[in-house]
Amino acid sequence: MADPVEFYFEFASPYGYFASLQIDDIAARHGREVVWRPIMLGAALKLSGMAPIAQQPLRRDYFFHDVLRTARLLGIPLTMPAVQPMNSLAAGRAFYWLEATDVGLARDLARAVYRAHWQEGRDMSPAEAVAEVVAPLGVDPDALLAAVQDPAVKQRYKEVTEASLARGVFGSPFIIVDGEAFWGSDRLDQVDRWLGGGW
Amino acid sequence: MADPVEFYFEFASPYGYFASLQIDDIAARHGREVVWRPIMLGAALKLSGMAPIAQQPLRRDYFFHDVLRTARLLGIPLTMPAVQPMNSLAAGRAFYWLEATDVGLARDLARAVYRAHWQEGRDMSPAEAVAEVVAPLGVDPDALLAAVQDPAVKQRYKEVTEASLARGVFGSPFIIVDGEAFWGSDRLDQVDRWLGGGW
Repeated sequence: MADPVEFYFEFASPYGYFASLQIDDIAARHGREVVWRPIMLGAALKLSGMAPIAQQPLRRDYFFHDVLRTARLLGIPLTMPAVQPMNSLAAGRAFYWLEATDVGLARDLARAVYRAHWQEGRDMSPAEAVAEVVAPLGVDPDALLAAVQDPAVKQRYKEVTEASLARGVFGSPFIIVDGEAFWGSDRLDQVDRWLGGGW
Repeated sequence: MADPVEFYFEFASPYGYFASLQIDDIAARHGREVVWRPIMLGAALKLSGMAPIAQQPLRRDYFFHDVLRTARLLGIPLTMPAVQPMNSLAAGRAFYWLEATDVGLARDLARAVYRAHWQEGRDMSPAEAVAEVVAPLGVDPDALLAAVQDPAVKQRYKEVTEASLARGVFGSPFIIVDGEAFWGSDRLDQVDRWLGGGW
């Protein structure tokens, strides 16, 4: 079977949220699996010389407007979170903690965090908030709260982020297909065509 | 008749080039005219806290790759110019000089400059290069070389750029439809749908 599609994303990124709702279907149409890779985008932004979007005067207003308009166009429910950007430390660590034993459960956590943050507008920065939204998935809240303080788990999230930087990942979503990189939810059509071959 | 679509662009921007090949047709489908507005993007980049893309380590390589790939996907001929970013001072001034008396001719100049720069890879920074590519349109080269030094023409280009900044234009292409702003050639599908109404 062909290599899986690599899907890098930041929980604080609405465009990552949009992509998370489409990437599995796109890959499946071409017989591919997807590896989900939440990362801490702050480090990449620093290295790439980009200020966080909320600190860029002209772009900030447009960004919020574009997110709402694009959600409307795609038919995706969205509530603009009052707290932005959320801190993805707890969510990312919890993801890799679960992934070590259950890839599907980790993905369900990612979907639950995205839904709570971007669909319901909740601040998902506190580990307690992450524990709460994944409890219905059968994840023990106390175990999650302990895991996000586990040095090995912390290290894992850091290493994945550093490895993504080394591969040139500088935005969210960032999708790699057989070494070919695509940045942005507005490149999903190109990802689809690339997977289909012929150009 | 409904208001024209405003099409802001920077000659140094390949995404502006892509949009320049499509915007008139998109607007025409909805019975709209287009006002072409070349601007100097450097001022907006400074104000918005963005470094020019060529100075952003991680994004730079991706940018060049994305431009070539998108051109291939759209079937648009493209030669990556050796000199980037080109300085659009002469081309922009020449545009507004012509526009004062002949809007269609000014647009033809913009198309000719875009074609020479992005299709043929030529450096269009020198006024002499601009004069040369528009000579076949019947524009007198000496008159053009004099015009780009005319204080009134210089002032006009500066004023249009400042006015665009005041309206929140921070990228290229930047398209405004009835007050609704769209940034990027990857938002042309949204421009099309917005012009069609219904969302």
